[in-house]
Amino acid sequence: MFKLYDISSVIRPQMQVWKDLEHNRPVFETVRSHDSGETHETRISLDAHTGTHLDAPLHMLPGGEKIEAIPLGDLIGPARVLDLTGAEDGITRQDLEPFAIQPGEWILLKTKNSYTDEWRDDFIYVKQDGAEYLAGLGIKGVGVDGLGIERSQEGYPTHRTLMRSGVLILEGLRLKEVSGGSYFFVLAPLKLEGIEAAPARAFLMGS
Amino acid sequence: MFKLYDISSVIRPQMQVWKDLEHNRPVFETVRSHDSGETHETRISLDAHTGTHLDAPLHMLPGGEKIEAIPLGDLIGPARVLDLTGAEDGITRQDLEPFAIQPGEWILLKTKNSYTDEWRDDFIYVKQDGAEYLAGLGIKGVGVDGLGIERSQEGYPTHRTLMRSGVLILEGLRLKEVSGGSYFFVLAPLKLEGIEAAPARAFLMGS
Repeated sequence: MFKLYDISSVIRPQMQVWKDLEHNRPVFETVRSHDSGETHETRISLDAHTGTHLDAPLHMLPGGEKIEAIPLGDLIGPARVLDLTGAEDGITRQDLEPFAIQPGEWILLKTKNSYTDEWRDDFIYVKQDGAEYLAGLGIKGVGVDGLGIERSQEGYPTHRTLMRSGVLILEGLRLKEVSGGSYFFVLAPLKLEGIEAAPARAFLMGS
Repeated sequence: MFKLYDISSVIRPQMQVWKDLEHNRPVFETVRSHDSGETHETRISLDAHTGTHLDAPLHMLPGGEKIEAIPLGDLIGPARVLDLTGAEDGITRQDLEPFAIQPGEWILLKTKNSYTDEWRDDFIYVKQDGAEYLAGLGIKGVGVDGLGIERSQEGYPTHRTLMRSGVLILEGLRLKEVSGGSYFFVLAPLKLEGIEAAPARAFLMGS
């Protein structure tokens, strides 16, 4: 039997959100409850970029493809977790080269971000030269354990370099419980239509 | 290589919602776009019971468990699709008995519901005696292709019978493209905390 690793963020009002801004928080509104009726029902309001989520090219590229253009089959298959918990500030080409990344893989970058559930302005991100390196390897996608794959880079070169090369971007993973190594990966975004991202459940199966 | 069947509803503002009521519709609000800035960002508002979704006991049982109490491991494993496209009105014990349902399976009920994307007041549901039968078989859960597993039954006996027996309830599947038979099933609800249901992506792997 396989071992299952849930690598998704918990979605709740008090969770880490982008730049810690109140208007980015999820809101759960109880619209019916057992005190007043026979059922309990909640309406949810959340940003498409809440917690663990998959970006579509439209997020960063004018006229880019929407979330429904990403085939589910591209989100299920082999993945490798790279242990980059020693990385400071941002991940570079030099950090990535030793891992002998293979075409067709999903690459999940485990950093210090997985060890805090709080927003930090100095979260570890992927620097432009790291993105340029990843963009040339033929990988399916790259997953990060920060809420963003980049910060403070004018013009969003990390997102745009990867998107223009057809590399999918998954943000907001939680990788503390997973060791570096190879796994079978399942990424299951909500089947949303017409927008630029989707919240997702993600998990790994390994031995 | 396995074949993948996506059995999730598309989530969009014009989709089928409970009783076709406007206030049950998802709303996608564009909060930033490439016309006015450098990124495209959407805020989503939707009922927890939108499209394909997993109910937790709290939905129908006062003091019942919330969605986070359902282990992900219970949502991944063998499933059987039962072809009940001949059933009229509601599914009974008599409809289910011929299938020799086994303990530990997920049971997905394919009905006429899968052949329309419109809300219908007379959607096919699971009658109380069908639920009583399913509740005694030791199955993991039951999935239906209507937005609800029951309609017009006072006191919600189908939901409550199943929930009291620990049988999970998944609603809003789309099974038109899938034949009756055995599959490997993955159900991936959003990792929500504190509420009574979660929208989900669901798929089957088969040969």
